[in-house]
Parts: sequence; structure tokens; C-alpha cells
Amino acid sequence: MSEEKKLSVQAMTDWASRCLEKQGATQDVAQAMAKHLVAGDLLGFRTHGLLRLRYNLQALQSGQTKPSGRAEVLQQRAAIELWDADLLSGLYIVPQAVARAIEMARECGTGTVIVRRTQHVAALAVYLEQAVAAGMLIQMMCSTPAQEVVAPYGAKSACFSPNPFAIGAPTQTDPILLDMSLSMTAAGKVRTALAEQRQLPYAALITPAGDYSCDPATFVADPPSVLASLGGKELGYKGTGLNLFSELWTLALSDYGRQDALEADADANTVWLQVVDPTALAPAGAFEQQASALVAALQNADPIDPQHPVRVPGAGALATRRRQVEHGLEYSAATWRQLLWCAEFCDEPLPTVATAQ
Amino acid sequence: MSEEKKLSVQAMTDWASRCLEKQGATQDVAQAMAKHLVAGDLLGFRTHGLLRLRYNLQALQSGQTKPSGRAEVLQQRAAIELWDADLLSGLYIVPQAVARAIEMARECGTGTVIVRRTQHVAALAVYLEQAVAAGMLIQMMCSTPAQEVVAPYGAKSACFSPNPFAIGAPTQTDPILLDMSLSMTAAGKVRTALAEQRQLPYAALITPAGDYSCDPATFVADPPSVLASLGGKELGYKGTGLNLFSELWTLALSDYGRQDALEADADANTVWLQVVDPTALAPAGAFEQQASALVAALQNADPIDPQHPVRVPGAGALATRRRQVEHGLEYSAATWRQLLWCAEFCDEPLPTVATAQ
Repeated sequence: MSEEKKLSVQAMTDWASRCLEKQGATQDVAQAMAKHLVAGDLLGFRTHGLLRLRYNLQALQSGQTKPSGRAEVLQQRAAIELWDADLLSGLYIVPQAVARAIEMARECGTGTVIVRRTQHVAALAVYLEQAVAAGMLIQMMCSTPAQEVVAPYGAKSACFSPNPFAIGAPTQTDPILLDMSLSMTAAGKVRTALAEQRQLPYAALITPAGDYSCDPATFVADPPSVLASLGGKELGYKGTGLNLFSELWTLALSDYGRQDALEADADANTVWLQVVDPTALAPAGAFEQQASALVAALQNADPIDPQHPVRVPGAGALATRRRQVEHGLEYSAATWRQLLWCAEFCDEPLPTVATAQ
Repeated sequence: MSEEKKLSVQAMTDWASRCLEKQGATQDVAQAMAKHLVAGDLLGFRTHGLLRLRYNLQALQSGQTKPSGRAEVLQQRAAIELWDADLLSGLYIVPQAVARAIEMARECGTGTVIVRRTQHVAALAVYLEQAVAAGMLIQMMCSTPAQEVVAPYGAKSACFSPNPFAIGAPTQTDPILLDMSLSMTAAGKVRTALAEQRQLPYAALITPAGDYSCDPATFVADPPSVLASLGGKELGYKGTGLNLFSELWTLALSDYGRQDALEADADANTVWLQVVDPTALAPAGAFEQQASALVAALQNADPIDPQHPVRVPGAGALATRRRQVEHGLEYSAATWRQLLWCAEFCDEPLPTVATAQ
């Protein structure tokens, strides 16, 4: 940890926002993008925090991400809307979609927004608490029509994008926050293992020869390996079913599939998000009480290893955020090098390091 | 296969319906129950077909399943309703809930019904095509508040019920039908392995000592083993997250958790079902075209074993149904013994075997 940097959350958010503005983003777009990238860092989603600032700056510069504008509502009924984000950043558009879904849920009990053509949303986890703070449940899925990296069960070639799946729900104390991929691992984790020159902890890749592999080098070979669906060699048909669920509910419902996606879409995502208002079904507070009972059941389960009690989804992320809010944002040396590149690219000096340990 | 029986679908359905009426079910209840149990057999869900007739007859006789009545709508908004089924069979109530969800989806774009206290629903797969036939997508989850059989990740004791997850979606040809458990295997499959005196194909059980095991005998030992969440030893936190998703969206949203369930609830389920009308978002036919493109991508993936092309969820079940519709319902000797028990219990002789091979 000797090289780790600790920085003020506000200073880093403001710095990132200035950088994004220098690449053309309007102030509201830049602030939303910076805020939600830093939110990823705070929750410990290191591959989807400011490590992705460089990508976002370059995508603004190249025009791949639009610097300003509005999403268009293409279709709607009382409890569902389809938006086209016109290649604005998901970091800016998704919070607006969550807000609209909350409104619909207040009216109809559930509210759903499907957003197509929104540039890279980063971590779905950062959008969950907006709904939870309104006392609501949220479920999110996301796919990428211009990408195929995940193999269906029984195949050695890919037909799915890496598809994250996330939920958020209020309890009487901390919210439940889950954000996971429907593949055995995420592409970012494979690239991190490659950079750190280590094997994956389990065989999450399938080589062109059809073998399950732990070796991240196969992922950048030519031809490359592909990611296995959740469930792996024995139960991969379940992960395949879940990936198909994600892509039917995102790509097919939005009528924007792989055959429609343009090369210019690049990392543009299609997002399904649905909010449920529990007070449509039970008195205020009842849901939180029931959710807390489920959390208690998890916590009271008899651990295989007494040193490792069962974890509640989100508890680790919230602890990571509390630590960083108190002591400063933590950046690895590798991420810091990327931020130095951004500082130079935008001629915006990085904030002073609060604490160097 | 020498002992396998082949029988007329109509004759078996009528026979099962007569048996159910003899245990007090009104004609409409009995017909719906028989129809949906036989539908499970037709799709090849052998553990959730007429093999469960004996259970249903006994539950009617004991009063555990109510023989007649209506579900009560406890709460509603435009796009969601909470029903209490008063211990009527799910085989009777769930189709009514799907019909209501379809109506709400026509109006609002999505329609959701949560049904609590409905006696055992059997296979979720049998309810999917009702929505698909209306041109809609459906997602279903189901939990059992009086049961704890599935362990969360890192635990050797259970806190979840076996929670199935199902989707249905129309394409330009056969529908996509998925019905899977969120654990590594289902309790019925463990009991079948035990009856057939064979090991499970993978370590889906966790023993009281905390070891993953393939041995179904551990499941009926004292103390018993428990089912592992999907993802197993390496990625079980994902299955745990999905089980929590299921139980938050069923038990917590219906305000009827494990602390509320009575012993008399027994196998009573809580069902979340949601229907989406794709024509709320795109012209008629667009969804089916996009879904067919996703199916084609699955089918065109390069198989690891050229003898085993990638399977589309539901294709096997639909082929099993076509075969049985043409040649007769197929029953194993073990299931036939259960049906003979039912015939005697109800004094309703079984239909003549159409073909004995």
C-alpha cells in the first residue's frame, strides 16, 4: 500500500469535472459524469471509477460520447418508457431515467425505463441508491449491442456482451446493493489479472480450442478466448438463460439489436431499469422490516469458516465508502498513472494528495 | 424404456381432474389443476407433473389446499396487484394472475401480480405460454416462506427456499421458455438421484461439516445437507444475490415473510410474475424479429463439441411435448406406481395404456 494515494472526494470530483468540461462536456454533463465515476471508486468498483476517466475524455474528444443534449422519449405507456440517449454518457442519462422510473412507480406501482444508445454507464451500483433513497426497490440490467465477448453454454465463441445485473432495496439499516456480471467474470477483471501478471482464481475463460482456462493471456491472444456464462462447465445453461433474459429485456425490447448497432456505438449500452414502490402493496415501513428479516437470516446462517460470516450484498461496498469518505479516496499506483495522463491531457493539475502512506 | 407407459393427454387430464374432484375440488379448480400438472409432464418437467398428483390429492383431503374459492386482491395500483390466494392451488390461481397481468400490461406497458399463500405451483414453465400467446414477455419468480433448504454463499445452513426463476418470450417461431432453480440443483432432482441410487453429477449439496458433496443420501441424513446457491464454491455469492432478489421481490414485497408463515402453509408459495407488452415500445412484430436474431446468434455459436450444438432454452421441452402429443404421454414405472396409488385412493381406474413398449 506504500504507493496508494488518498484524496479528497470533493477535490477529485471537481477536478474530474473540469477535465470533462475541457473536452467539451457542458457543466451539468461533466458534473454528473465526475460524480458517478467517483461514486464507483467510493464503493470499491475500481475498474469502473476514475480509472475510466481517460476513456471518457477520449470518447468526448472523438465525438463518440456526445458532450451535451437530451435523451429522446421514443415510446411510452403509463408504467414504461423507451429512451434513445443519442450517445450521451450513461453517467449523465441513467440518473434521469431512474428519476423518471420513480415517478412512474409512485403513480403505477412500478416504473420502467429502457435506455438505448447511452455511452458507457460504468458501474450499475452507483445508480441504485437513488431509488433506495426514495424508499423503492430497483432492478437494472445492461447490455452492449456492439460487443460479443461471452459464450453461451456449450460454445467456444461469444454471442453475448458482458451483462451486469444489479438490484437495490431499502432495509431498516443499510440498503442491499448487488451488482454482478452474468458471466463467470468481467472483462475488466481479466485485464486487471493480465496487468498484474497473475492467473484468474478459477477457469472463467473458454479458449478457441474449447477448453476452460484461468490464463488471462488467452483473452488477448489471436484468436482470443471468451468469457464463460455464469454456471460454468456444469451449470452454464443457467447463466446462458440469464444472459438471454438480459438481452431480450434490453436489446429486443428496445428494438435495437446487434444487427442495428453501428461501429460508432462502440461501448454504448442498452439499460433496463425498473423501480417498484413497496408502499403500493403494504404500509410504509413493512417492506424495510421484511427486508431486514431476510438480511438477518443471511447473517445468522452458520458459516463454513467461522472466521468468515456470510456477507450481505453491498455491505463490503458501503464499508469501503465509509472508510474513504473519512480518510480520503484511495488510488492504486496504476490508477494514479492514468489520472496523471488525464491531468496532462487536459492541462488540469491533480489535487494535492491528502495523505501519502 | 420397457416399462414406460404411453397415454392419451386428454384421457389422463380428465382422469386426474376426476380424482381431484373426488377430494373436494370444484370442477373448475380440478380441471385447472389437472391441466397444468399434465402440462408439466408434456414439457418434460417430470418431478412437477402428475407425479405430484398424490401430494395434491392428499393436500385437498387434509384441507392444506383449499378446494374452492377466489384469491383476494389485497392492494393495487395501475400496474401492480398483491393477491392473497387463501391456500388455493397455484395450478388454479396463477393462470388467473397471468391473465390479470396481461390486462395491466396492455394498459400500462407492464403488469405485475404478486400472489402470496398459493399452494404449490409446480413448474413455472407451464404458465409462460399464456403470456407468450398474447404476444408478451413474462418473468416469474417463486419462493416458499415456510421452507429453508438453500444455503447462502459461505454457509453450511439454509436460509432460502428453493427458488425457481422463469422467463418466456415470443420469437418468429418457437417461444423462448426458461425455468430454472437459483440453487445448484433442485430438491426434486436430489430425491430422484436418491431413489435411483446414484450420485449427483456435481457437488450441489453442502454437508453439516461444510463440505460440498455429490451424495444425495446426505440430504435425508440427520442433520441433513443443504442445497448450494448457483455459482457454487467459487461464485456462490452470485446465486446468493439472485436468491435474495427472488425473496425480496416475493416475500418482502408481499409483506409475508418466514416469520409470518404458519406451519399450515406447508408448501404454499409466493409468486412474482410480470408481463411486458413489447408493442408499448416498438411496432408489432419488432420484438419477435429481435428475439429471433438473439436465438439465431445462440444457434450459430461455435460448439465445443460439434455433436452438441448450443441449445435454445425451451427447445428441448417443446420437442418433448411434440413427441408426447403425437405418441402419448410417457410415464416411468416409478411415476406409474404413484398414479396407481392415486387411482386406488380415489377409486378412479386409470385410463387404458395407449401403447406399451
